[in-house]
Amino acid sequence: MEFVHLCPIWDKLSPAHQQLVSSAIVPKTLGKGAVLHDGSTDCAGLVLIKSGQLRAYILSEDGREITLYRLLDQDICLFSASCVMRSVQFEIMISAEKESQVFILPPYIFKKIMEESAPLANYVNELMATRFSEVMWLIEQIMWKSVDKRLANFLLEESALEDSDTLKLTHEAIANHLGTAREVVTRMLRYFQNEGYVKLTRGTLEIIDREGMENLVND
Amino acid sequence: MEFVHLCPIWDKLSPAHQQLVSSAIVPKTLGKGAVLHDGSTDCAGLVLIKSGQLRAYILSEDGREITLYRLLDQDICLFSASCVMRSVQFEIMISAEKESQVFILPPYIFKKIMEESAPLANYVNELMATRFSEVMWLIEQIMWKSVDKRLANFLLEESALEDSDTLKLTHEAIANHLGTAREVVTRMLRYFQNEGYVKLTRGTLEIIDREGMENLVND
Repeated sequence: MEFVHLCPIWDKLSPAHQQLVSSAIVPKTLGKGAVLHDGSTDCAGLVLIKSGQLRAYILSEDGREITLYRLLDQDICLFSASCVMRSVQFEIMISAEKESQVFILPPYIFKKIMEESAPLANYVNELMATRFSEVMWLIEQIMWKSVDKRLANFLLEESALEDSDTLKLTHEAIANHLGTAREVVTRMLRYFQNEGYVKLTRGTLEIIDREGMENLVND
Repeated sequence: MEFVHLCPIWDKLSPAHQQLVSSAIVPKTLGKGAVLHDGSTDCAGLVLIKSGQLRAYILSEDGREITLYRLLDQDICLFSASCVMRSVQFEIMISAEKESQVFILPPYIFKKIMEESAPLANYVNELMATRFSEVMWLIEQIMWKSVDKRLANFLLEESALEDSDTLKLTHEAIANHLGTAREVVTRMLRYFQNEGYVKLTRGTLEIIDREGMENLVND
C-alpha cells in the first residue's frame, strides 16, 4: 500500500499497530478550496498529504485572516486531529489551496495508537515542534519585520511554490496571507513596481528583479 | 521525595524509569533575574517549578522583547530541554521573574525516558500543545487587539500574579512584556489615568477601576 512508503515511522510501529492503521486509513481527494478543518467543530483525523497544498490560517471575529504555514507533499497535518489532544486550545482553519490527494487516519485510531506507542507519540512531538517553530517565525515577522520585507518574502515563497515568476494573486488574497489590509498591499505593490521588483498587470504579478527582492528581505 | 508528589505522570512511569528519574533529579534555586535558558546555547533539561515564577520571551536582533507566557508553581518548563527535540527551531529566552525553587531532570535522562515511555511522550505532547495555545493566543492579540486592550489585560494579569492592586513596574518593563515601545506605554498609561482606570505615582501603578478595565478588555 502506498501509504506505507509515505509514513515516516511505519517501521517503528508494532505489527498490531501496522495492521490497525492499514485497515483504518482512508484515501481522499480534497478539491481546491475544500475546508479540511474549521476551528474546533471538525476532527477529520491525522492527515498525510500525498500531493497537493494545504494552508493553515486563523480568522478574526470580523473575518480577517493570516496564514500560519503551508503543508506540502508528504507533510502531515496534525491539527486536523486536534480533538485528540485536549491541550490544543486554539481554533485553526485548514483548507486546500490546490487539489490534494491525502490519506486520513481517523482520530480514535490515532489516539489509541499514540497512547500505546512511544515512537508515534515522539513523532507527534516532532511534528508539533515543527509547526510551533513556523508560528514562532511568524511572530518574529509580525513583531519585527516591516510589511515590505514580509511582502517580498511572501512573493518569493509563492514563486517557489508555483515554480513560476508569474503569480495569479489578488491583492485581497495577499492581504489575507499576511494579515494586513488590502489597501496596504496595493500601496506596497505599486512601490515594488516603481522600484522595478515586479510588473503588475490585470490579475497577475510578475517578479522581474528577484535579486533585489531577496536583498530587501535579507537587509 | 517531594518531586514524586509534584510530577503529574509519576504513577504512569515504569519502576525502572521512576528509579532513573529519582537518581537524576536535581533541586535548584534560581535567583530573581537568573536566566534558565538563553536561546539555543543552553540545555538545562526538563524543569518542574516547585514555587516561583518564570517568564518565557523572545528577543529581536536589536534587543526588543515580547513575553510569550509565564510559568508558575507546578508548571513544567519544556523548552529548557529543547536540545532534546530537534524540531524546535526557535530561540526562546527563559528567566526567573521571582526567586524560584525548581527540580531539574537532565536532558539526556529526559530524552532516554521519553523515547521509551509512551505516557511521558504523550505528556510532553500535551505540554507543548499548552504552550502552543498560549502563543496562538498571543498572535491573535498582536494581530487583532489594540494596544489599550492588551495593556489593560496585562495589568489585570499582573495584579492577579502579585495578588495586589498596586504594581511596581517601569514603563520599560511593560513595553518589553507587550513587545511595544516605551513611549506607547507611557502615552497609554496617561490615558488610563485620565479615564480613571489607574493612578500613577513614581515607580508604582495602582488599579482603581478594575471593572472598567475588564470591560475594556472584553469590549
